[in-house]
Amino acid sequence: MHIGLVGLGKMGGNMRERLRRGGVEVTGYDPNPAVTDVPDLTALMAAVPAPRLIWIMVPSGAVTDKVVTDLLEVMDEGDLLIDGGNSRFVDDARHAEQAAAKGVRYADCGVSGGIWGLDNGYGLMAGGEKADIEFAAPVFDALRPEGPRAEGFVHAGPIGAGHYAKMVHNGIEYAQMQALAEGYELLAARSDLIHDVTGVFEAWQRGTVVRSWLLDLLVKALKEDPGLDDIEGFVEDSGEGRWTVQEALDHAVPMPAISASIFARFVSRQEDSPSMKAVAALRKQFGGHAVRSA
Amino acid sequence: MHIGLVGLGKMGGNMRERLRRGGVEVTGYDPNPAVTDVPDLTALMAAVPAPRLIWIMVPSGAVTDKVVTDLLEVMDEGDLLIDGGNSRFVDDARHAEQAAAKGVRYADCGVSGGIWGLDNGYGLMAGGEKADIEFAAPVFDALRPEGPRAEGFVHAGPIGAGHYAKMVHNGIEYAQMQALAEGYELLAARSDLIHDVTGVFEAWQRGTVVRSWLLDLLVKALKEDPGLDDIEGFVEDSGEGRWTVQEALDHAVPMPAISASIFARFVSRQEDSPSMKAVAALRKQFGGHAVRSA
Amino acid sequence: MHIGLVGLGKMGGNMRERLRRGGVEVTGYDPNPAVTDVPDLTALMAAVPAPRLIWIMVPSGAVTDKVVTDLLEVMDEGDLLIDGGNSRFVDDARHAEQAAAKGVRYADCGVSGGIWGLDNGYGLMAGGEKADIEFAAPVFDALRPEGPRAEGFVHAGPIGAGHYAKMVHNGIEYAQMQALAEGYELLAARSDLIHDVTGVFEAWQRGTVVRSWLLDLLVKALKEDPGLDDIEGFVEDSGEGRWTVQEALDHAVPMPAISASIFARFVSRQEDSPSMKAVAALRKQFGGHAVRSA
Amino acid sequence: MHIGLVGLGKMGGNMRERLRRGGVEVTGYDPNPAVTDVPDLTALMAAVPAPRLIWIMVPSGAVTDKVVTDLLEVMDEGDLLIDGGNSRFVDDARHAEQAAAKGVRYADCGVSGGIWGLDNGYGLMAGGEKADIEFAAPVFDALRPEGPRAEGFVHAGPIGAGHYAKMVHNGIEYAQMQALAEGYELLAARSDLIHDVTGVFEAWQRGTVVRSWLLDLLVKALKEDPGLDDIEGFVEDSGEGRWTVQEALDHAVPMPAISASIFARFVSRQEDSPSMKAVAALRKQFGGHAVRSA
Repeated sequence: MHIGLVGLGKMGGNMRERLRRGGVEVTGYDPNPAVTDVPDLTALMAAVPAPRLIWIMVPSGAVTDKVVTDLLEVMDEGDLLIDGGNSRFVDDARHAEQAAAKGVRYADCGVSGGIWGLDNGYGLMAGGEKADIEFAAPVFDALRPEGPRAEGFVHAGPIGAGHYAKMVHNGIEYAQMQALAEGYELLAARSDLIHDVTGVFEAWQRGTVVRSWLLDLLVKALKEDPGLDDIEGFVEDSGEGRWTVQEALDHAVPMPAISASIFARFVSRQEDSPSMKAVAALRKQFGGHAVRSA
Repeated sequence: MHIGLVGLGKMGGNMRERLRRGGVEVTGYDPNPAVTDVPDLTALMAAVPAPRLIWIMVPSGAVTDKVVTDLLEVMDEGDLLIDGGNSRFVDDARHAEQAAAKGVRYADCGVSGGIWGLDNGYGLMAGGEKADIEFAAPVFDALRPEGPRAEGFVHAGPIGAGHYAKMVHNGIEYAQMQALAEGYELLAARSDLIHDVTGVFEAWQRGTVVRSWLLDLLVKALKEDPGLDDIEGFVEDSGEGRWTVQEALDHAVPMPAISASIFARFVSRQEDSPSMKAVAALRKQFGGHAVRSA
Repeated sequence: MHIGLVGLGKMGGNMRERLRRGGVEVTGYDPNPAVTDVPDLTALMAAVPAPRLIWIMVPSGAVTDKVVTDLLEVMDEGDLLIDGGNSRFVDDARHAEQAAAKGVRYADCGVSGGIWGLDNGYGLMAGGEKADIEFAAPVFDALRPEGPRAEGFVHAGPIGAGHYAKMVHNGIEYAQMQALAEGYELLAARSDLIHDVTGVFEAWQRGTVVRSWLLDLLVKALKEDPGLDDIEGFVEDSGEGRWTVQEALDHAVPMPAISASIFARFVSRQEDSPSMKAVAALRKQFGGHAVRSA
Repeated sequence: MHIGLVGLGKMGGNMRERLRRGGVEVTGYDPNPAVTDVPDLTALMAAVPAPRLIWIMVPSGAVTDKVVTDLLEVMDEGDLLIDGGNSRFVDDARHAEQAAAKGVRYADCGVSGGIWGLDNGYGLMAGGEKADIEFAAPVFDALRPEGPRAEGFVHAGPIGAGHYAKMVHNGIEYAQMQALAEGYELLAARSDLIHDVTGVFEAWQRGTVVRSWLLDLLVKALKEDPGLDDIEGFVEDSGEGRWTVQEALDHAVPMPAISASIFARFVSRQEDSPSMKAVAALRKQFGGHAVRSA
């Protein structure tokens, strides 16, 4: 199989490499001349045999919107476009409609695994028509981890279902990280009793209920920098967590732990907290409690 | 009636004044010679007619423990000791037992109202024997706001019940403050749309569902300092909120809003967040996401 | 002044009455013949002198959309349309644009006060052009509580700001209710110690930090039904709380207490909890813990 | 090595088996004659060579207190007592003091792994004196999973540190379960889009960021009962989660996700929610909103 891959950044570049290792021919396009295989999308179309499979791996939102529009200018009827980026699932309906207007097929795929995916394989969640998903099967099989297909790939449902599943995956991920982080903070606060915080996490890697990949990574981080002295507690979020909670609100699903994880990140990025200013102001008003001047 | 009052700080001093305004004779003792009426506890005993009512208004914990012990050295059988400070309710059982060993009666009273209590009156929650509470009625009536007794005073139950009710009062207070603070932060974040944040809070003071004393105080604070620029978002907590949640945990009572309010205060006092360091470290490990160096 | 009022339900009907008491002439329209003043919108237009002020008080969403569209069919250039319902603030931009296309002016107004507004007056938060808000001033003054205008009315900002402020008001309201409710549950759980739960809340009505209108209402409810035995713990939500949190997520504002309040309502409406089924299933898997069969 | 093991229930019984498989001689005592190796503690002492290692594996709290007391009646100076149950870490100081009074050494060990530990090995967290931990090394090595010792065992600190680490482990575990459960509930709520919820979880088992042992168990549970129709959403908690949050409160550590997980369990066990009754009562009071009769 020979596909086109648009977007050769941290994720896309590694995916090209893993696909090639897996026997899939890949022609990649990226505006960065240092990494691209072809000079432009027209050249990409010329290089990939029809009916083409073109996989997009670019930032979600405006960039993906533009790339979808540009690609649909040059793709042909019967081609299949797959958005493998972190798009919000509601964007898929729009993109699929745009594609359909040109006779181009559309599918979406959530991709998990980060920088480790190149060697470990990526967890894949696809959404779309059965025939389209089957057409792309060799790509999924090359990207996913070795082992039973069902443990690293799912055709979750119709168009949008792949990104939806990835969104929920990331929401869960946020809360799993928060869980470990809260435990870490408590253990670190009791250094009078817990003399080996890193050792405790390390010992949890096997046999325990909490064993998990994120735990393994935390052990790795703590071994590199016990005390995490070199890292500031400033945490970005890339959108999926918020979308997860917004979906939960739309569907009346209680989501206290995942939302708490996102709010903690919001706070971590604030110089000072407007809400805590308000609480301090209130305490001063009613109790004459001292406040710190900003 | 003539009582003894031990502790003439911010709260105790105002309470002496309000009691006197209300016709209760008060002899106050405080280690601070500038405010005390008598030089020591022995002089206090001499000044107050038996059976004495001695009201303690000192910081909870070790200080209250010491004052109770010292007082029981000099009080006589049949006297009544009332702890009006912010003691944890579990301390009352202990203090009552100490008192009983000397034949001294014991009651507890939660007091709310802060610096405004002098003029507005204090909300009072008492715990103890019916006869003891009745004996102290003139004191309660002088301290509580004018109007129907039931709207500013309750005999909540046996010894400890007064402090318990006050503890829960403060837990509720924390979440009410947090509620206003979260709303403030969102309104302030949308200054593009909300051109008059202070005006919005001011307009809520009458007619709305959220009207409340804390709202009135927030309006006062915002008028003094719109934007709360002079106040740092650093918020202490004095224990009652934590105790409330610990009680909730002991009795399997879900308490998500009150606990969230306390955790927000904890975060407000951290230079950097160990848990957010851990999350940042994890994101760096799996995604190669940039972190800020501490 | 003579205005048209569309929607004479629980809120609209009371508002007509209060406006009339306040000297504003009102012609009301409602599809319900038992309450309407005129048979249809055309008759409404005929009854109200131009330039007209037409106030909408109907359910938000599809109903408001339809009423706006229907009214714009019959209103004239220079008329002013005010949506006083609980519309989501994003709808205002759309409605204002529709109105502008017909030369009709548009403003929005959040209204708080529930069934008590008739006698107490309503808290009002308006959004729109200065000239339009001034034009409607007699209406605002009749609806708002007596006393200083600024304590019951605000012109919060441009179109949408009124509904935005009302949305945040309701978010705060949710958390204030949750705060009281959590305190209630803990006090009720300790009936061994707190012998008079209703009395405790009653005593908080004056002098304390938590005194508030919602507290007064809780006292009223507890006096009618101590133990709340006749009421099921099943709580609807009307949208504003969810929108508040969704806005918070969009603007990276931490909102743990308000979101907790909404999630608690979601749970209250579930027959059984899918997430707790999952947790029970997990405990069974790893620990052989007994589960209850559904 | 030859040790005594007191308590041969679900955990203790499996541990005896794993120890024997690992070459450690075990004499077990349990009041249940069907499983015990000796008729009483005196016989246990007679069977185990001195200096003895006696490992307790019984329910925490009163039962452990009693077993410790009974054992110290029969143990000899120089023997080592290890509490491997789920005791609260504060109990260890008390038990160690009791032991010291008899010249008996004391250590504590948190044990994780549930019913899978027999075959997979148990994650172990020990607290105590270095010499005592070394004396017990053959037991730890037989119980822990095969592989590097540090990945399944830690000497976390002085007496109490083992149970402390286990307590935090369980707190993290609660939030990890809650994370998966919230994601499950949202996916299940969107069955219109997600046609294969079980498949999604299954696909996350490899390559993804959320891969973990608990995820594997959820897949197992969903395969046995998709929809979890046979399981009620009723979840017990065994104490460690509450203790974790109580410790967090004592040390000002924010813990929003773990506390949310515990509160969700509390709610899951309520027939009706007192706090939601209060909220419903409030909505009825101010808005005339319909309530459901209980």
